[in-house]
Amino acid sequence: MAERRYALGLDYGTNSVRALIVDVTTGEEIATAVHEYTRGDQGVLSDPDNPHVARQHVADYHEGLEAAVNGAVQAASGAPGFSAAQIIGIGVDTTGSTPIPVDSEGVPLCMRPEFEGNPNALAWLWKDHSSMAEAEAITAAAAEMRPHYLQRCGGVYSSEWFFSKLWRCLTIDREVFEAAHSWVEFCDYIPALLVGDLRPDRIQRSVCAAGHKAMYADDWGGLPDREFLNALNPALGALRPRLFERAYPAGLRAGTLCRDWAERLGLRPGIGVSVGAFDAHMGAVGAGVGLGTLVKIIGTSSCDITVAAPDSAAGDIPGVCGVVRGSVLPGYWGVEAGQSAVGDIFNWFVTQICGGNASFHATLTSQADALQPGESGLLALDWNNGNRTVLVDARLTGLLVGQTLRTSQAEVYRALIEATAFGSHTILNRMREYGVTVDRVVACGGIAEKNPMLMQIYADVDGQPISVTRSSQTCALGAAIFGAVAAGPDEGGYPDTETAQKAMASGVSCTYHPNTANAPVYRQLYGLYKRLHDSFGVAGHSDCLADVMKRLLEIQQQAA
Amino acid sequence: MAERRYALGLDYGTNSVRALIVDVTTGEEIATAVHEYTRGDQGVLSDPDNPHVARQHVADYHEGLEAAVNGAVQAASGAPGFSAAQIIGIGVDTTGSTPIPVDSEGVPLCMRPEFEGNPNALAWLWKDHSSMAEAEAITAAAAEMRPHYLQRCGGVYSSEWFFSKLWRCLTIDREVFEAAHSWVEFCDYIPALLVGDLRPDRIQRSVCAAGHKAMYADDWGGLPDREFLNALNPALGALRPRLFERAYPAGLRAGTLCRDWAERLGLRPGIGVSVGAFDAHMGAVGAGVGLGTLVKIIGTSSCDITVAAPDSAAGDIPGVCGVVRGSVLPGYWGVEAGQSAVGDIFNWFVTQICGGNASFHATLTSQADALQPGESGLLALDWNNGNRTVLVDARLTGLLVGQTLRTSQAEVYRALIEATAFGSHTILNRMREYGVTVDRVVACGGIAEKNPMLMQIYADVDGQPISVTRSSQTCALGAAIFGAVAAGPDEGGYPDTETAQKAMASGVSCTYHPNTANAPVYRQLYGLYKRLHDSFGVAGHSDCLADVMKRLLEIQQQAA
Repeated sequence: MAERRYALGLDYGTNSVRALIVDVTTGEEIATAVHEYTRGDQGVLSDPDNPHVARQHVADYHEGLEAAVNGAVQAASGAPGFSAAQIIGIGVDTTGSTPIPVDSEGVPLCMRPEFEGNPNALAWLWKDHSSMAEAEAITAAAAEMRPHYLQRCGGVYSSEWFFSKLWRCLTIDREVFEAAHSWVEFCDYIPALLVGDLRPDRIQRSVCAAGHKAMYADDWGGLPDREFLNALNPALGALRPRLFERAYPAGLRAGTLCRDWAERLGLRPGIGVSVGAFDAHMGAVGAGVGLGTLVKIIGTSSCDITVAAPDSAAGDIPGVCGVVRGSVLPGYWGVEAGQSAVGDIFNWFVTQICGGNASFHATLTSQADALQPGESGLLALDWNNGNRTVLVDARLTGLLVGQTLRTSQAEVYRALIEATAFGSHTILNRMREYGVTVDRVVACGGIAEKNPMLMQIYADVDGQPISVTRSSQTCALGAAIFGAVAAGPDEGGYPDTETAQKAMASGVSCTYHPNTANAPVYRQLYGLYKRLHDSFGVAGHSDCLADVMKRLLEIQQQAA
Repeated sequence: MAERRYALGLDYGTNSVRALIVDVTTGEEIATAVHEYTRGDQGVLSDPDNPHVARQHVADYHEGLEAAVNGAVQAASGAPGFSAAQIIGIGVDTTGSTPIPVDSEGVPLCMRPEFEGNPNALAWLWKDHSSMAEAEAITAAAAEMRPHYLQRCGGVYSSEWFFSKLWRCLTIDREVFEAAHSWVEFCDYIPALLVGDLRPDRIQRSVCAAGHKAMYADDWGGLPDREFLNALNPALGALRPRLFERAYPAGLRAGTLCRDWAERLGLRPGIGVSVGAFDAHMGAVGAGVGLGTLVKIIGTSSCDITVAAPDSAAGDIPGVCGVVRGSVLPGYWGVEAGQSAVGDIFNWFVTQICGGNASFHATLTSQADALQPGESGLLALDWNNGNRTVLVDARLTGLLVGQTLRTSQAEVYRALIEATAFGSHTILNRMREYGVTVDRVVACGGIAEKNPMLMQIYADVDGQPISVTRSSQTCALGAAIFGAVAAGPDEGGYPDTETAQKAMASGVSCTYHPNTANAPVYRQLYGLYKRLHDSFGVAGHSDCLADVMKRLLEIQQQAA
């Protein structure tokens, strides 16, 4: 038997970093270790005066890198025949957009003594929403000057994204902004760190980060042009030459592991390090995304990722938050959509409205599972945290209709789950309208693993099977897949991502098949959902809704 | 000092009967006693196989009459200078429509041995809803043949009403129907019992019962004509001559107290007994209803009663559940509207959704009271039990919009209270559109007495003061007022109801004045409420609602 080869996947989340060692031939997950960040509240540094601020210290990333990799290598040392020298490549995914201001050597400003204690010199975490005014101004300027910049990000530029954050820094802390020679995305920083060359003009930037968060596209020459950035603020225009010209898909080699970090991590120097990408995108690859396969990550919110053929109309899908060439798999459109809240809605209902604790979910789930579709007479919109796809509108809210004096907690709970299923179905429909084929749906994430009732409802509403991945670490697994591609076939890795996926991506632990008996009632309920969706969500849309409550009662009577 | 005179009011509710002795000169409530019915569940006999059935045994009414009056007289005997001989008249209100099948002597069939144990021979309690099919058929037939019959009952004939119940009896129990020489409303039966002549053709029927529940109006010759009843069923047509030709307002003397019942009650024989009416209508009189004064009874549901000048357009108000000449005060239109659920909605939310007990209302009320109008961003429709006025549609249901992941129980609770205030305001507006003057609002009932926050919200939404009656027994007090009128001036009573009211009707314990600072936000919220009301409630109405959630967020921001 040939000596085994392994790839290392690094998955940087919001509160911790995970290292996962994966057998390159079989995809078997050999060992893993997690390091929780130590600074702030689980790694998040906030501002008591502004609830929208969320930052992270790069030192947490460095410490986590060392602790998690060493931990995983140590855990793997029990595996028969394993040695760290058999690790042939590294892939990295992170949260994003999480830009880091750096000096001309690429050293993060927060690591320099003169900026110690200055929150604006830290990494601006993805969920920092303090740049809302800047985001609105960018959306308005782009709509006026460069409408195509918005076309592939759902028509609205977000406060979570790259240029909103840079501009916000310029607005509130000119000293940090001027000290920043460039800004580097978290998912570009870690590979550069491993390669040992942080100089901004040497970093191989991720097209996933650039395309989804910085309006980058080869079609229009990369990043937004200087004239546009000047119109926002001349200081942003002046920064453009110090950002980057080109960005690359993951799997491409960012470089090789430098001696310094090889020593610290106990790995072989010179092994391939992949260009980075965002967690959800690498997670989709780990879950087996491909042409015709959509991956749903279902947790507090949801993220739907698939790919489309390069010659398809995917680039024109309206209301989908990101369509970027190469952001998921090289050579394909990466298509990213999602719902702003899924598990968060159920948690809100259980804790805030029912006054229950986490275990009350199980009680309500078992009661709700005993209900027939339509039996409650209820219908909800899943917008308690706005709508990310297909309306791309944060200023939408929840709605529940059909309550009587007999409506129970379990009925509302089920209606909220169904609402998220209808929201998910709306995303699928929109993708299909624009020629994106979806004939297989694979789900991962906490809710997909833990709530069979929800999964069955999703299958019933979509009218097609939905599978759950066997791996519960698909992000780190995806990163390892890209590590194996960065290693290349000469080192025992793979020539391309799809070949690597065939060998390494997660299988499924189970598949929910649609119950055809439920199809007619869900078809009716979805029709009503879509009418409420358009009435409350689409400007200028008008409808006579006086039949909605009565149709729900009719459906209820049929169900009884 | 002249010898005091007293009037006796009898108030027959769903579960008990109350006797109240009132000083005719001052309106002082001297003594009261309540008898709880002993049969069934608090007097209500149900059918385990049909949740819509609700019946009562007339023996409960007889026993209650004796127990309550004797109890009140005994309680009053402590009052200085009181003797039962100073009671000069009796008034009676009851629930309704609660028709009783009787034989040719007027004896209720349930009192005859051969019908013992037959539920269809009992009194058909107001909340018996088993006649839904018959009610729909009556509505359809009237709409086709006699549209004017529906004009004064909101356009829909209810399953709670007289002819629906008679027809239902014919459908399910022909033996009882054929044994019934006539049917007598509960509020007509008790005065006839006191007078000692139950013969159906001698009973002075109440125009309140006849007009609100049996499509009676002098304008079209009394009850529905025989041709119409024949079209429903010839057996109903054949019954018509054994019903009644004319009906009368309360205050008119039904007769005088017979010797037998005078003895049983310890009262003077020969004192006046008033024609009966329904509880809410006599309650309004006890609360001081009159031209320009609307009385709101706020409990599990609500009932709004006022009067309008005989030459006004009140008879044409659409969507108001009852407009009947003389049903409240002789000579005026009696106008009755209401909401199908008020306190029931709050109870549903507290017990079914929050899982709290009755004391949780106080917790939520104090939290909700700390909120500013508009602060929650929520808006609700108060239709959890359908809409009685102005849409008259039982097949409408509840709606809540504006939920986020931060929405609290108290915010929902307040939104539900505000929804009932908006529903109430819609009724007021409709009355005013048709020339009914309302410049004073007086509330009574459990919620009016117990929830100052709700009362303040009602005052704020209406933009006018709302008072609470001092008496918490306005129904029995109203009955006593009619007892004093039936006694007449020669016996120390009154020549007419309005004079009696001036002396005897309840004063107010407090008045809530609108907080003008809240007027602008409630005007905005009511505008949005009305748009949802029309969109979901009015067939053929269409509107673009895409601004609703955003306007709520704007109102929320203004409030913060």
